[in-house]
Amino acid sequence: MDDYSKAEVLMEALPYICKFHGQKFLIKYGGHAMVNDDAKNWVAKDLVLLKYVGMNPIVVHGGGPEINNAMKKMGKTPEFIHGLRVTDQETLDIVKMVLIGKINGDIVSKLEKYGGKSVGLSGKSGHLIKAKKKLQYLLKDSQKIEVDLGMVGEVSHIDTKLVDLLVEQNYIPVISPIGVDEYGNDLNLNADIAAGDIAGATCSKKLIMVTDVDGIMEDINDPSTLHKKVNVEKLEMMIEQGIIQGGMIPKIEAAINALNKGVDSVHIINGRTPHAILLEIFTETGIGTMIVK
Amino acid sequence: MDDYSKAEVLMEALPYICKFHGQKFLIKYGGHAMVNDDAKNWVAKDLVLLKYVGMNPIVVHGGGPEINNAMKKMGKTPEFIHGLRVTDQETLDIVKMVLIGKINGDIVSKLEKYGGKSVGLSGKSGHLIKAKKKLQYLLKDSQKIEVDLGMVGEVSHIDTKLVDLLVEQNYIPVISPIGVDEYGNDLNLNADIAAGDIAGATCSKKLIMVTDVDGIMEDINDPSTLHKKVNVEKLEMMIEQGIIQGGMIPKIEAAINALNKGVDSVHIINGRTPHAILLEIFTETGIGTMIVK
Amino acid sequence: MDDYSKAEVLMEALPYICKFHGQKFLIKYGGHAMVNDDAKNWVAKDLVLLKYVGMNPIVVHGGGPEINNAMKKMGKTPEFIHGLRVTDQETLDIVKMVLIGKINGDIVSKLEKYGGKSVGLSGKSGHLIKAKKKLQYLLKDSQKIEVDLGMVGEVSHIDTKLVDLLVEQNYIPVISPIGVDEYGNDLNLNADIAAGDIAGATCSKKLIMVTDVDGIMEDINDPSTLHKKVNVEKLEMMIEQGIIQGGMIPKIEAAINALNKGVDSVHIINGRTPHAILLEIFTETGIGTMIVK
Amino acid sequence: MDDYSKAEVLMEALPYICKFHGQKFLIKYGGHAMVNDDAKNWVAKDLVLLKYVGMNPIVVHGGGPEINNAMKKMGKTPEFIHGLRVTDQETLDIVKMVLIGKINGDIVSKLEKYGGKSVGLSGKSGHLIKAKKKLQYLLKDSQKIEVDLGMVGEVSHIDTKLVDLLVEQNYIPVISPIGVDEYGNDLNLNADIAAGDIAGATCSKKLIMVTDVDGIMEDINDPSTLHKKVNVEKLEMMIEQGIIQGGMIPKIEAAINALNKGVDSVHIINGRTPHAILLEIFTETGIGTMIVK
Amino acid sequence: MDDYSKAEVLMEALPYICKFHGQKFLIKYGGHAMVNDDAKNWVAKDLVLLKYVGMNPIVVHGGGPEINNAMKKMGKTPEFIHGLRVTDQETLDIVKMVLIGKINGDIVSKLEKYGGKSVGLSGKSGHLIKAKKKLQYLLKDSQKIEVDLGMVGEVSHIDTKLVDLLVEQNYIPVISPIGVDEYGNDLNLNADIAAGDIAGATCSKKLIMVTDVDGIMEDINDPSTLHKKVNVEKLEMMIEQGIIQGGMIPKIEAAINALNKGVDSVHIINGRTPHAILLEIFTETGIGTMIVK
Amino acid sequence: MDDYSKAEVLMEALPYICKFHGQKFLIKYGGHAMVNDDAKNWVAKDLVLLKYVGMNPIVVHGGGPEINNAMKKMGKTPEFIHGLRVTDQETLDIVKMVLIGKINGDIVSKLEKYGGKSVGLSGKSGHLIKAKKKLQYLLKDSQKIEVDLGMVGEVSHIDTKLVDLLVEQNYIPVISPIGVDEYGNDLNLNADIAAGDIAGATCSKKLIMVTDVDGIMEDINDPSTLHKKVNVEKLEMMIEQGIIQGGMIPKIEAAINALNKGVDSVHIINGRTPHAILLEIFTETGIGTMIVK
Repeated sequence: MDDYSKAEVLMEALPYICKFHGQKFLIKYGGHAMVNDDAKNWVAKDLVLLKYVGMNPIVVHGGGPEINNAMKKMGKTPEFIHGLRVTDQETLDIVKMVLIGKINGDIVSKLEKYGGKSVGLSGKSGHLIKAKKKLQYLLKDSQKIEVDLGMVGEVSHIDTKLVDLLVEQNYIPVISPIGVDEYGNDLNLNADIAAGDIAGATCSKKLIMVTDVDGIMEDINDPSTLHKKVNVEKLEMMIEQGIIQGGMIPKIEAAINALNKGVDSVHIINGRTPHAILLEIFTETGIGTMIVK
Repeated sequence: MDDYSKAEVLMEALPYICKFHGQKFLIKYGGHAMVNDDAKNWVAKDLVLLKYVGMNPIVVHGGGPEINNAMKKMGKTPEFIHGLRVTDQETLDIVKMVLIGKINGDIVSKLEKYGGKSVGLSGKSGHLIKAKKKLQYLLKDSQKIEVDLGMVGEVSHIDTKLVDLLVEQNYIPVISPIGVDEYGNDLNLNADIAAGDIAGATCSKKLIMVTDVDGIMEDINDPSTLHKKVNVEKLEMMIEQGIIQGGMIPKIEAAINALNKGVDSVHIINGRTPHAILLEIFTETGIGTMIVK
Repeated sequence: MDDYSKAEVLMEALPYICKFHGQKFLIKYGGHAMVNDDAKNWVAKDLVLLKYVGMNPIVVHGGGPEINNAMKKMGKTPEFIHGLRVTDQETLDIVKMVLIGKINGDIVSKLEKYGGKSVGLSGKSGHLIKAKKKLQYLLKDSQKIEVDLGMVGEVSHIDTKLVDLLVEQNYIPVISPIGVDEYGNDLNLNADIAAGDIAGATCSKKLIMVTDVDGIMEDINDPSTLHKKVNVEKLEMMIEQGIIQGGMIPKIEAAINALNKGVDSVHIINGRTPHAILLEIFTETGIGTMIVK
Repeated sequence: MDDYSKAEVLMEALPYICKFHGQKFLIKYGGHAMVNDDAKNWVAKDLVLLKYVGMNPIVVHGGGPEINNAMKKMGKTPEFIHGLRVTDQETLDIVKMVLIGKINGDIVSKLEKYGGKSVGLSGKSGHLIKAKKKLQYLLKDSQKIEVDLGMVGEVSHIDTKLVDLLVEQNYIPVISPIGVDEYGNDLNLNADIAAGDIAGATCSKKLIMVTDVDGIMEDINDPSTLHKKVNVEKLEMMIEQGIIQGGMIPKIEAAINALNKGVDSVHIINGRTPHAILLEIFTETGIGTMIVK
Repeated sequence: MDDYSKAEVLMEALPYICKFHGQKFLIKYGGHAMVNDDAKNWVAKDLVLLKYVGMNPIVVHGGGPEINNAMKKMGKTPEFIHGLRVTDQETLDIVKMVLIGKINGDIVSKLEKYGGKSVGLSGKSGHLIKAKKKLQYLLKDSQKIEVDLGMVGEVSHIDTKLVDLLVEQNYIPVISPIGVDEYGNDLNLNADIAAGDIAGATCSKKLIMVTDVDGIMEDINDPSTLHKKVNVEKLEMMIEQGIIQGGMIPKIEAAINALNKGVDSVHIINGRTPHAILLEIFTETGIGTMIVK
Repeated sequence: MDDYSKAEVLMEALPYICKFHGQKFLIKYGGHAMVNDDAKNWVAKDLVLLKYVGMNPIVVHGGGPEINNAMKKMGKTPEFIHGLRVTDQETLDIVKMVLIGKINGDIVSKLEKYGGKSVGLSGKSGHLIKAKKKLQYLLKDSQKIEVDLGMVGEVSHIDTKLVDLLVEQNYIPVISPIGVDEYGNDLNLNADIAAGDIAGATCSKKLIMVTDVDGIMEDINDPSTLHKKVNVEKLEMMIEQGIIQGGMIPKIEAAINALNKGVDSVHIINGRTPHAILLEIFTETGIGTMIVK
């Protein structure tokens, strides 16, 4: 590529840099999107670039596969109900050790390696995430029965003071989705849902969900059916019709939640695509699915 | 106790509150001092009180026994050379998961439970602890032989910006002793030594080492031989004479290091004594051993 | 008392220290409560301690007995109507000399002696207390007749800028109750009433009236009839029933005034009790009477 | 006077307003210069104008004649040694009541009446004037004998923090010359000398001594011998020759002291001349005597 | 004039200095009022004095006569419709060169010469004046016909951020009346009208129009018929009656516009009168015509 | 170009964005480099991009050709001695009108059009450029003879306060090279030399000279002889050897001057190359000549 073309690329980015100057972006990242080192490096470099050109990324990460591995190593079998991990005390300890003690630190290290300043947090620091035990119901013989997921929670309040302080001082906060209930007990949170809550509370402009699929497709096996842009109404129809199902459902819930809390748009992109975040933000069409109200 | 006596106790504290107003105290805490919930609660309450009356505690914690337990659970045998843990990649992962993912969070939770604001950190966040691989030598057949401790490091630079920011905003930072080398690799640090380095770099007034012994004794089996106050010269003599030995030696090294870096005094106190930190700071005689230059 | 008990006392104070952190307390102090040096020292030490543990005391003082003494020395006979001092020009000069030139300075000196920073003020500095001449009526032969109290005023406006500035910079303001009317003339103010006005204007959390009685009693001769807590309705009934009378009435008026202006609670305590202020704030039951709305 | 001439007068002031913008001026004022209400009003108006056009006046006042009157009223005879008031405890009380309780407040009231913001202070507030007992010697039969002046002091340290804070917030501080010794005892200070010390410590540009004479004259009975400008060397000669004597001597000492501490010039002017301060600052020749190093 | 009278003049100014402290004054200046160097110096000195005594002048200038001269030099004939300059591209270039390149700089230089700090601006800097093409209609044969004035505009939005920044930092902004339309094209603005708009947008207290007449007169040939103070209603009547006509009409429109936007009063004064601005602000009666709502 | 390649280009820029974050760059721009609208747009867009990604461009412009045109229009013949314009009063007026009234405003408009915030300045505003008359000598018959260039100056002092203020508030200052001498007279400055002085005074990291040549070449007719990087020593040799001559000489002088004042590097680039500034900063090799000490 010649020099002139390079300069033109930078120029193309200018309107986006102007438009999003000083805005916060909540990046949900983790689990299946962290498949290999390349993907991790792409994400880290993208976030550092965003920070340097004046935007404010905030990361919330998950870590399902790594938690499963660690559990198996310790002889425990992961168990899920409606996509939520059943979490006893021992499981909670493993969840925290993997999320806070391993994945969070890995992301922080990558960001600092590529020139950013980053701070790892969980919902435990600075009263960040206040949570309450999640009540879950199952249908059994047409009856709604409450099932106990153990130490699984849902966000009841986000205190953004610590995150705001760090963002202002140009750190990229990286947050593990662990909340604390009113008695001081830790609770395991669904990372997608927590990301939506934090996006709303921090007044983020966009919630970008880095996943391992290209976006929302009419036919999951046919990439040409990718929706570039959908609204909530359409999504709800697709869920009803069974087109959207499985692990995508909590993502959609998180997206709708975030939009209701004032986030402008939610983006579902594929972390295996090199520099997916940059391309989603800095190009006209983007590369995944953009969800709006 | 009658009301008047209570008021008198508060009054006795006044000169110390005045004297140490706005000062930083580095509390090294962990491992054997975290024996039971009572001890953990005492320490947390003491630190929150210190913060509220205008002082600035900073915590560095260790976690040797818990790391050993976790290793054993995973079928690994802890191995030490000269008191330093030999640390291969798998061990380092366990060290990080236990320190950052478990102990750090537990301390943060206790502090927030008793009314403080706290943030858990490791040396990975905000370029806090830059480290380099520690070279260790053994004498074998009168020859100095280098032994490889694996991913064990020593502090090469402390960047206090993040800690200063949090302290100013009235958070109590809780730091896990993990450092990062110039290539971005994590290194396991000795918590005592790291605490001394951080005490010096943050211009802390005191380094308070919360341990499981009452202080430095002439005869370790006779509590009446406790030294209330010793200087470095005396300590060096005691080491030479073999009076001080074992795990106390790195603590003494950390103490001397901190004093050389400008810390006024180092205190070795017993975490099993209720409110040991308060008593050391707010009483004339203190309860452990005070080390000065 | 052993060390552990001492630490427990400090711990008992912690919830109060947290709760009142950064709050302003208006301390009305003076006159009969300034009987001896011990009492003065207790109050000064209590206020300095409050300041150091993060609260913001503001003092308004009176000085009736000392003014009477000075007047007698100069051959003048003090005269009161409904508890208010009839104040001619010569009396006003004596009032100002005693309040501003003597008592105010004595309080400031005590506070600075015990480690505080303090500034003596009157309502004349910084347009602090704008007042207007008080109209007083007497019943004579069932007719309301206006009597001239001379240069006696009531507060018409408090400008808190100067006090706020000093409080923020960690000074303890000590205020003599002299106001200025719209023509620039000084007016003698009732210290209790002025304290209530200043408590309201400065958004103080509590108004603490340090007196020479233990509080409000059902039977003034029987300490066991002390009310630990009363509300305004009850007080008004007690006045109607003649249980509360004499010098206590303006204090109750000031208390009700302060409560109406947003002060949370008013406390009447005995300055002859050692550390009465600390005990009132830092113990569950307090030692005097707490008045609430 | 026609309008044009008025505008020209304002224009003449411009270079002085520019030159002294933001500068501090220490005005020593009091005693014999406070002869009548006109004089007091002139001074107050001048200071308010100075403040409004961007300069920072600080007032130190005396009050000898009024103290003498008060003492006589109370049946005490003023006694002086070498121009310094012998001060027993009762005298000190009278001094404080007159200076702090009366004169200081009068000046503050005048300043606020003419549109200024002012705060009355003594050396007791905010650790402003630290003093020590003054040792005084007399020659008796050619022998130097120490005489005890009682509670008379000299400045040992000025802490300008409080004054700086008030000046920045556009208050005019009015300071009574009472100092505090290391044991917390009040000491009576010579107002001229204290003014010189405070001028130096506050980095004032000018020390303006408002007196009841026109300045320094070669022949005290012949106004035409007024010195418009003298230097220290000349003054020392005049003292040696006995041309300068009596109450002027401490003023000269204060002047030399202030010049040595960095004040640019000292001005001795006559407070009975209408607007003497303005004329001294805003006219080329001034109206009194200017003393330079 | 004797010294005392001079001081009295300064004293007379004090109430105005107090009253207008920190207020903004918009000075419309230029064109016919810039007849000679004396007039320019008077205005500059007056503005510097205003700034130094605590007020905040902002200057908007015109430059009709000088633009006409420059046009003639370049062989172009100035053409006006209803007092507005018909402005083709070449004319616009000349307007900008004369206003921004010459007159603006001359005013800035004068202000800096007399001790002020000044910054020259046009509506092009900092998005200061957003304008739109002015539509102008003529009556022809009783029909309203649109005429094209060329690049002549009217203000659509004032962004005061840059001016506020400079005023706070004690610069005197000098603004050339050039606006920018939504496509980035420059537009020539009527200076009087623009001054009124800027006075309103900057929350100026007064709009002072420095002209070459003494004010609004009942009979333009009889100075004794000068109106010292008129209101809008009266002015509208005078226009209707034809008493006010010609170039004064846009000034009156600008005045009414400014009053409607919250300016307290508009002053029309004669720049040939020495120190006209000072006299208008600092004297009871002023020297020109004061217009109020 | 595919998306991935675009992202890679942004990534390539990251290290430069990090490295130059918050740095000032002095862009000398004008004259022959302003040949067409494309060139002007490229430069404006490049500067806005630099600003948005965290760097701080400051512009100094020239305008030789346009001044010549304007002079000819007015019937004056431009005259140069040693590359400096002989400047009589009339010429100076034309210079100011063209530079300040035309070119400066054009640059400001372009910057604001592409999304930047910009303020036009000359050395006259805010005491920015203090200058003194330039003395120029000619050799005639081996004798050094002083020639009078008229109102031509050289920088004697740069006051950066105004520029610093604007840069901090994210404006791009655009400066016309007109200075003011100690008597308040304007002086015409060589834009290259002034740019070097301002680069030094503002602590700019780089001085980028946008010209109409590709850089410094060994053979001016052979582009392949372009020097990518030269040091001062080499340049001095090239001048001595006559390789560098004519209009390039003042540029080299300005470059050496800037380097001596602490600028890291000076870059000579061709404004006709699209996005020359971006390419010089954001690519490893750059596109012009880099001059270092």
